[in-house]
Amino acid sequence: MTSTLTYHHLPQIDSPEDLRALSVEQLGAVCDDIRRFIIEVISSNSGHLGASLGAVEIAVALHYVFNTPDDRVIWDVGHQAYAHKILTGRKSDFHNNRKYKGISGFPKMTESAYDAFGTGHASTAISAALGMAIADVLDGNTDRHNIAVVGDGSMTGGMAFEAMNHAGELKPNMLIILNDNGISIDKGVGAFKEYLLSITTSTTYNRFKNKVWNYMMRRKSRYGKNTIAITRQLTRGLKSSVTGFSNLFEALNWRYFGPVDGHDIKTMVNILQAMKKIPGTKILHLVTKKGKGLTLAEENPISYHAPDKFDMTTGCILEKTTGDMPAKYQDVFGHTIVELARQNPKIIGITPAMPTGCSLNIMMQELPDRAFDVGIAEQHAVTFSAGLAAAGKIPFCNIYSSFMQRSYDQVIHDVALQKLPVVFCLDRAGLVGEDGPTHHGAFDLAYFRSIPNITIAAPMNEVELRNMMFTAQTGKHGAFSIRYPRGRGVLSEWKQPFEELPVGKGRKLRDGDKIAIVSIGHPGNFAAAACEELEQKNIAVAHYDMRFLKPIDEELLHEICKKYTTIITVEDGTIIGGLGSAVMEFSVKNEYHAKIFRLGIPDEFIEQGTLNQLHKDCGFDKEGIIKIINLCL
Amino acid sequence: MTSTLTYHHLPQIDSPEDLRALSVEQLGAVCDDIRRFIIEVISSNSGHLGASLGAVEIAVALHYVFNTPDDRVIWDVGHQAYAHKILTGRKSDFHNNRKYKGISGFPKMTESAYDAFGTGHASTAISAALGMAIADVLDGNTDRHNIAVVGDGSMTGGMAFEAMNHAGELKPNMLIILNDNGISIDKGVGAFKEYLLSITTSTTYNRFKNKVWNYMMRRKSRYGKNTIAITRQLTRGLKSSVTGFSNLFEALNWRYFGPVDGHDIKTMVNILQAMKKIPGTKILHLVTKKGKGLTLAEENPISYHAPDKFDMTTGCILEKTTGDMPAKYQDVFGHTIVELARQNPKIIGITPAMPTGCSLNIMMQELPDRAFDVGIAEQHAVTFSAGLAAAGKIPFCNIYSSFMQRSYDQVIHDVALQKLPVVFCLDRAGLVGEDGPTHHGAFDLAYFRSIPNITIAAPMNEVELRNMMFTAQTGKHGAFSIRYPRGRGVLSEWKQPFEELPVGKGRKLRDGDKIAIVSIGHPGNFAAAACEELEQKNIAVAHYDMRFLKPIDEELLHEICKKYTTIITVEDGTIIGGLGSAVMEFSVKNEYHAKIFRLGIPDEFIEQGTLNQLHKDCGFDKEGIIKIINLCL
Repeated sequence: MTSTLTYHHLPQIDSPEDLRALSVEQLGAVCDDIRRFIIEVISSNSGHLGASLGAVEIAVALHYVFNTPDDRVIWDVGHQAYAHKILTGRKSDFHNNRKYKGISGFPKMTESAYDAFGTGHASTAISAALGMAIADVLDGNTDRHNIAVVGDGSMTGGMAFEAMNHAGELKPNMLIILNDNGISIDKGVGAFKEYLLSITTSTTYNRFKNKVWNYMMRRKSRYGKNTIAITRQLTRGLKSSVTGFSNLFEALNWRYFGPVDGHDIKTMVNILQAMKKIPGTKILHLVTKKGKGLTLAEENPISYHAPDKFDMTTGCILEKTTGDMPAKYQDVFGHTIVELARQNPKIIGITPAMPTGCSLNIMMQELPDRAFDVGIAEQHAVTFSAGLAAAGKIPFCNIYSSFMQRSYDQVIHDVALQKLPVVFCLDRAGLVGEDGPTHHGAFDLAYFRSIPNITIAAPMNEVELRNMMFTAQTGKHGAFSIRYPRGRGVLSEWKQPFEELPVGKGRKLRDGDKIAIVSIGHPGNFAAAACEELEQKNIAVAHYDMRFLKPIDEELLHEICKKYTTIITVEDGTIIGGLGSAVMEFSVKNEYHAKIFRLGIPDEFIEQGTLNQLHKDCGFDKEGIIKIINLCL
Repeated sequence: MTSTLTYHHLPQIDSPEDLRALSVEQLGAVCDDIRRFIIEVISSNSGHLGASLGAVEIAVALHYVFNTPDDRVIWDVGHQAYAHKILTGRKSDFHNNRKYKGISGFPKMTESAYDAFGTGHASTAISAALGMAIADVLDGNTDRHNIAVVGDGSMTGGMAFEAMNHAGELKPNMLIILNDNGISIDKGVGAFKEYLLSITTSTTYNRFKNKVWNYMMRRKSRYGKNTIAITRQLTRGLKSSVTGFSNLFEALNWRYFGPVDGHDIKTMVNILQAMKKIPGTKILHLVTKKGKGLTLAEENPISYHAPDKFDMTTGCILEKTTGDMPAKYQDVFGHTIVELARQNPKIIGITPAMPTGCSLNIMMQELPDRAFDVGIAEQHAVTFSAGLAAAGKIPFCNIYSSFMQRSYDQVIHDVALQKLPVVFCLDRAGLVGEDGPTHHGAFDLAYFRSIPNITIAAPMNEVELRNMMFTAQTGKHGAFSIRYPRGRGVLSEWKQPFEELPVGKGRKLRDGDKIAIVSIGHPGNFAAAACEELEQKNIAVAHYDMRFLKPIDEELLHEICKKYTTIITVEDGTIIGGLGSAVMEFSVKNEYHAKIFRLGIPDEFIEQGTLNQLHKDCGFDKEGIIKIINLCL
């Protein structure tokens, strides 16, 4: 910590035990401390600011009231858990948050005993907490609490409902903290959000409820252990009679408490202490503000979800000089789909809760009737797209590669099997950098390649992305997947006229003597740079950009296998099952005997770091490619 | 049709238009006809009897009231859609239901214009119907109805909730028919089921509601077009004031109607005609009886879900003489997990809604506290297992291979990444026969192979399955997948003492001269039979059973690649990405030059048929293997 003098208690807190030694009255100051610490560190380091600022009081209250780490807290998604990390022994490591070999931006079991379960993808926490709660039941442990902290956005993911439904039948001791900030990464969507809002904003209900709670809590000594039961009775009565609310949670056998101000630390501690004594499945609905404590972040929750560096005093985001830097693939996608949609009225845009991340927000602005954010609901996103396609539309379903793992069955069963012309745009394909192993888009080339009736493409640059999108929207090729990485391309003039690409045809970029590089997608640029550098030393290495993994260009592969004695495949995906495997299969099948080396993501989960660092570690950056070529010479 | 004389109207019905020419009074007789026709045909052909008998009136009512195929009906799961098929031009093909080159047991877009969307896996219909409804909104088509028929079991699948949540925000014209028979394939589970039951059995509510409906419907002429609005107002009032029901559907912006007797064809037609005029998202809750019309099927819905041949008069299932036939892999799994669980108190059994199919029902009977049916909820099943494992248990999560596609992300993100010792038992791996392309377990070897930290095993027989389960439950190997096919093994004495297998080690079954077969799993038996037969002709073909696809036995592969000039890989999975690919990759990497031929499932969706037929078509049955060996000699 850089400026300990300005903190009240934080320097003395190294674990939840230190926190629990404080009085309830002191917790407000602890929250202030943590909030300032997060702002201070993230302002110069970047990270998931908004959600974590909104969950400071939740983390403090949970660690204060519950006996962590014996009691287990699971942070759904986990990017809101910075206060939790700071309170559980990782304060001094926090400046290395999300950095190479630093602490993870998400909870991680191997990092701390306080991280009861690793998270990253949404909507998993209730299932995991239920598993743990049932283990406790079987072990006869009736004392331990299992707590899932779940955002309102995560609650729209189907598996959260699956878990609530199952838990509502088994009814072990468990608690959901519903952290309702009305926003996920982008603006929340769906009827469920409206429903929460209707509870939250019912003034009649809330006025009554607060009176009852306060009254009863003040009289706890008088009513003793029945206080909670009586209070519950009263508030339940209120809900059905005064307001007529149909409580969705209680329909699933979850006792519902709330809504409560998730920044009122004293009330939360009171309520949680009371709720500890209530057996069974229960949910506490907390209303929080994303970015709480930093005015600009409160006002612009989407921009401040995970801002780059900002001024810690004013909160102003520091503009990066992007100068002549190439565009982001995301922006190219966002502008191109609008351009195509204006020409082709069949085109529809779909994203599961990532409009800003994938830039579909541009289409949502320009053509609002034809662009849909379906919420955190990847399975639905794909089958909804299939329904649109069955009714004659050309849906562009944009899902991050690692989240597409959630829709694998729907791609097979609802799209490919039925030969429907759904275009999958797999954003964040390949290594993603600081978000680490939960978010790397490592598997898509492999997991799509075994599916029949699907075209798999990956652009080497922005113009290629545009042309692949143009080719896909003709609808002639059925299911069509286009994968591209997070971040910038390589061209400054990317807005070129569209050109229809021959599906299943690659291209030769450069001739060579004995060695050929066969690449797919963006890492083709690393290969091109390697070839350039080697040419300076009069080493001529051929380079082919396959463009399509499926159907693969066999004509081109015959040419390559016949002409070159060594082939190096380069891809930003798992070595097992992707381009390298396809080339090897082709070679054996056709009885070629060239040596083949595969560069890509090795058979292990890759940790976090900058993209450059990770490409280097995996050995498919420019230097890695040059190194292997030198070994082959 | 074999006995047309006994039917009232069915012989005259070749399409829904013929149906719509009848009077409402005649529909009851039509339902009787269809029900008898289904019983007659299925009694000698087998098929999904119970669900289809329960949905006869639904099919008749929908095609009578709605203008199909312009109005679209999507049958979730689809195995209940026999009446729909019979009514829509497939009556004369119905005796070929589920047979090789016959009509599909599920709706299929290429089979009929009346099949608005292909189904097979659960919980997809609402998403698809929403996509179609939104396409209509964009096309300005306000007349068309989009209808999803969804069972109460399917409603527990998370994507049904995702779709309801999204639709509840957009509110296009669409209708869910909730076909509530209180049972999916096995007994229904979860809080949602209890919730539906509580609505259904509230006598106060139902008495009032029926009175109101009947009263209003009789007076439709008096109140005119407002009848429905007024009725709805009244029944909604009833729900919140008389019974205090918190209606889950209305919380998600779906107008709820029901419950209504799903076998009362006249009332259903009345209500559907009224509901047609109500815009927006609406749900009609129908209570039906699985197996309706066949007493034994009504009384034993699990046995009669998809019975083998039965006596059409008495309903008695005809016992097959199994004699000395080997046990089913399913029974071996079911008995073995109980045997292991008695020795190892950490073992827990989990199935998503398939206890009878996978035989976990044996453990649910013997050790009810430690075996969980989580409902149709594959995603939750895996992460629930991960939570159990994180809390020290050894969960055996049994999921059919094609349904495991639903949990792909959870296997990667919650289990493999965290190195948790979850044992995946992939039942129905490989081709499954009559259920066809939606249900073939074709992809698992490929989609698991690219995941780090997972052991992939496949037993060649029952004893191997037992030993793999024994090895996995030691918990020493982290995530551990065991895949085996639907149906019988090959041994009569399978209950042998357990033996721990060396993980990642294959075994040599037979030596040979020039050609070696490398197999994994059950098709190793086809290979063994081929070797036997060839030996009669003095052709010595070597045979290796790899046992493990990952880690693969490289020592053994070196031996094979060095010794043999031709290698034939045999697997019951996609040729792309599985064992054959792994062997080819190994060969190229190590610069071996043996010819390698891959037998398995080719790169296309395989249609339905008997297992023998499909193995033959794919070319990896005994004859197929012999054929390719003869070509290689």
